[in-house]
Amino acid sequence: MAELITVEDPDDPRLHDYTGLTDVELRRRREPAEGLFVAEGEKVIRRARDAGYAMRSMLLTPKWADVMRDVIDDTPAPVYVVSPGLAEQVTGYHVHRGALASMRRRPLPAAADVLRTARRVAVLESVNDHTNIGAVFRSAAALGMDAVLLSPDCADPLYRRSVKVSMGAVFAVPHARLDPWLDGLAAVRAAGFRLLALTPGERATPLDEAARHRMDRVALMLGAEGTGLSAKALGAADTQVRIPMAHGVDSLNVAAAAAVAFYAVATGRPES
Amino acid sequence: MAELITVEDPDDPRLHDYTGLTDVELRRRREPAEGLFVAEGEKVIRRARDAGYAMRSMLLTPKWADVMRDVIDDTPAPVYVVSPGLAEQVTGYHVHRGALASMRRRPLPAAADVLRTARRVAVLESVNDHTNIGAVFRSAAALGMDAVLLSPDCADPLYRRSVKVSMGAVFAVPHARLDPWLDGLAAVRAAGFRLLALTPGERATPLDEAARHRMDRVALMLGAEGTGLSAKALGAADTQVRIPMAHGVDSLNVAAAAAVAFYAVATGRPES
Repeated sequence: MAELITVEDPDDPRLHDYTGLTDVELRRRREPAEGLFVAEGEKVIRRARDAGYAMRSMLLTPKWADVMRDVIDDTPAPVYVVSPGLAEQVTGYHVHRGALASMRRRPLPAAADVLRTARRVAVLESVNDHTNIGAVFRSAAALGMDAVLLSPDCADPLYRRSVKVSMGAVFAVPHARLDPWLDGLAAVRAAGFRLLALTPGERATPLDEAARHRMDRVALMLGAEGTGLSAKALGAADTQVRIPMAHGVDSLNVAAAAAVAFYAVATGRPES
Repeated sequence: MAELITVEDPDDPRLHDYTGLTDVELRRRREPAEGLFVAEGEKVIRRARDAGYAMRSMLLTPKWADVMRDVIDDTPAPVYVVSPGLAEQVTGYHVHRGALASMRRRPLPAAADVLRTARRVAVLESVNDHTNIGAVFRSAAALGMDAVLLSPDCADPLYRRSVKVSMGAVFAVPHARLDPWLDGLAAVRAAGFRLLALTPGERATPLDEAARHRMDRVALMLGAEGTGLSAKALGAADTQVRIPMAHGVDSLNVAAAAAVAFYAVATGRPES
């Protein structure tokens, strides 16, 4: 059972894991370097714990210390109880869901290990927006993708905003980095996956043609909002596919495109 | 050609359309009451204009006055040129894309008018998040939905955030309110549309079964993030459909669910 520690000094060094949470640039550097990530809100904290992440500490307002009783009883990590005002002083924002946990990062698996058992994976290039990363993971989990592979410059799936938008799906769907990126893509193909690259390019195959049947051993490549996949990544793909568009619209949001593509390859269009 | 007016006083009454833009509650009341909405950024302003909305005025920083030269030449509305600092003082935030336009609202069409020529429509209940509304419109435009029908308590598609997230798709896809809500749903069916209600309910028909063929005269009903469609709305549907989910996930984000469903009914699974 965790120790319950009331803290009243915003400069208490034991709260260091939670300082400056609104400073994205600072936290992006600090969290991987210090081996931690922050889970926010009851559900997400429970999901991180259930996925086997070890807790470094929790920061709770008194109301949430009651709600989280069983989690507290179950962890050896210290639990800091603070007033809502102090939580805001420390973190830099009003913590609506008065419960934060600092969790220990684990080494990422190698892409090769993830690919060994996966049937369908998402491959993201340069998706550097935490909201989009989180949304892609949430859809990947719901729509049966077995893993997400990331180019080195993709945003961190364990950054607080990604975790929150994903509703904890970043814990359910394993992810790995492809580094170096193009060699990594070649390794995905060498592992027996067909590389489908999503692009708005008109000469690409319509997704509903490409995914006529439920697909196995397929890697769905998606690029960043706006720029899309790089020419080199498109060149490395087996097939370029496009989502048929109407109204002269040139692109979907990357999270929406991902959801559509995940659904298409998971569902296929079996013979009637 | 528009008059170019340099303004240096943040309290100049001619800038009233742009004051307090970060106060969501205030703007939600003011904008419909004053018959305006705010378009932000070059692309979105051009799309509003191209969709035939009349301009009340523009607020530009000098840099953007150059970029928007042709729009300025083309509008009889006054154009206020202000420093980036003054733009921030007036609006309450740092206007990254230094171009704002106040546009005149038009009366919404009646649902019956919209339904007369539509093949596929989205029907939203209680979606009161501007980001989600914008994302749904963007996907609706891209994936060939002909209109969006909204329950009375849905958020305003012409609110600045909705417009921005939609990338201007709120101008391309007509929308109407169903008011009163349940009578409105009955009217959609009476107009010859089959009502498909998206729900995570296990007894619902899988979407890929329901949308075996490209569907016409179909109305796709979606509820708010979290709560989903109300029991009454579900009861008014012809068929309840669900997106098959994996990993024990219980729901998709409403924008992702919408994208998947729009794709499914637009594409179908034609006989191979």
